[in-house]
Amino acid sequence: MQKIDEHKSFAGWQQRYTHASTACGCDMTFSLYLPPTADTEKVPVVYWLSGLTCTDENFPNKAGAQAIAAELGVALVAPDTSPRGEGVADDDAYDLGQGAGFYVNATQAPWSTHYQMYDYVARELPDILAESFGDRLDLAREAIAGHSMGGHGALVIGLRNPDRFAAIAAFAPICAPSEVPWGEKAFSAYLGDDKRAWQAYDAAALVTAADNPKALPPIRVEQGLADGFLDEQLAPDRLEAAAAQTGARCEVNRRKGYDHSYFFIASFIENHLRFLARHLGA
Amino acid sequence: MQKIDEHKSFAGWQQRYTHASTACGCDMTFSLYLPPTADTEKVPVVYWLSGLTCTDENFPNKAGAQAIAAELGVALVAPDTSPRGEGVADDDAYDLGQGAGFYVNATQAPWSTHYQMYDYVARELPDILAESFGDRLDLAREAIAGHSMGGHGALVIGLRNPDRFAAIAAFAPICAPSEVPWGEKAFSAYLGDDKRAWQAYDAAALVTAADNPKALPPIRVEQGLADGFLDEQLAPDRLEAAAAQTGARCEVNRRKGYDHSYFFIASFIENHLRFLARHLGA
Repeated sequence: MQKIDEHKSFAGWQQRYTHASTACGCDMTFSLYLPPTADTEKVPVVYWLSGLTCTDENFPNKAGAQAIAAELGVALVAPDTSPRGEGVADDDAYDLGQGAGFYVNATQAPWSTHYQMYDYVARELPDILAESFGDRLDLAREAIAGHSMGGHGALVIGLRNPDRFAAIAAFAPICAPSEVPWGEKAFSAYLGDDKRAWQAYDAAALVTAADNPKALPPIRVEQGLADGFLDEQLAPDRLEAAAAQTGARCEVNRRKGYDHSYFFIASFIENHLRFLARHLGA
Repeated sequence: MQKIDEHKSFAGWQQRYTHASTACGCDMTFSLYLPPTADTEKVPVVYWLSGLTCTDENFPNKAGAQAIAAELGVALVAPDTSPRGEGVADDDAYDLGQGAGFYVNATQAPWSTHYQMYDYVARELPDILAESFGDRLDLAREAIAGHSMGGHGALVIGLRNPDRFAAIAAFAPICAPSEVPWGEKAFSAYLGDDKRAWQAYDAAALVTAADNPKALPPIRVEQGLADGFLDEQLAPDRLEAAAAQTGARCEVNRRKGYDHSYFFIASFIENHLRFLARHLGA
């Protein structure tokens, strides 16, 4: 693993690392914010998964999260949104291929070779963090968050690993990807046409199918009501309905006037990080 | 004037406008943050001048200033860093031409046609704001801030208009441009070889030459000690010495470990905005 960049930020460190990924079969880059308290104690970890077209850099550059993370004493880990590189399959569209991994393990050619983002985020990245930052990060205390496609990723990874994640926070997540155009396009390509395979990556379906819905991590969703993707792509009402039916803990906050941008995220990231920190005991 | 973009941000609005500029002879774009209080009262204005290679967008995207501006009830105005467009003179280097206006009124060909950034920021932009936002902005209460080349611009415009600006804040400003490579290159090109013309755009020289240094606006400088440009280009000690000699109010805060990036700015923007707001009576 190689450190490629580092900036002091709110008395902690905003860093970038690149490493060879076994899951994705290519080099992967992630951003890490270490709060100042990580100098002297092991701090809990919040993963942030970004949306379509993003890299690991959008969140550290635009969300204004470091101020709060420094105060709360939590680390922020922001992976890239897909495998990348010349040998990695891609598509001209912004919503498929590089920058659009959808946090699934692809089973279909040509995507299956590198697009193993579920395994990368849920399994390989925590192992790498434990190995390289085991003295600074407390990997027994994890929470997960994200935006849009990354909100979908946070929900799916959190719901499928309820014993690991203390809580899930999502801005404008794709809540029912099996039933909306972004998800249908990506899942058809990555997972094939059998929709049964899609259910393992559909937050609303996962809540509905959960053995013990009340034991799922508590979910906080923030949704702008001026978000142009809300009706066609995001469908928070489906997640909300699944939670209401099953007793899963899910709070959806609808915010008048806010859109899909990082200006929306920045406006409410403090609420999300405080929610996650409370459940992390931070 | 045309609104080209708008996002709700911390209960206020982050907007972009483009307009035909008389001073620069081309279209100019600026970003404006209106805090929520601007809905019901006239709020004071903080100008932010960005550094080399930046546009009006770097500050609103990366500084995390809106949270504080919303709380304090101040507007943030971020102009572009130079005239732009196909008919505007340019240079391949990052530190001359488009993106590098240095906030001067150029007197030398080919720059003098469009590069009138001093007049644009100090005169035309406030007039345009008064005309279009006179019911929301209190242009009798102004302060000015910036970063690097824009810190130089904030110092120069603030020091040359002491009756207008309540205070000046600058991150890693070029404090004595007449005596450092960035300034020597830009001033030679824009102002010619007679160094007497440079003095009107040199913060340290302006403090030294001031008729009434104690009546200059109070200055706050934040300087990272891991800033790679510190020794060669920024020279805060020259400004500090000029202030100490003359009795001008100038506080330089040196910050261990911080570099020249927006991560540094974000870490201390709250301190700067609170300093400016205090002097604005906000």
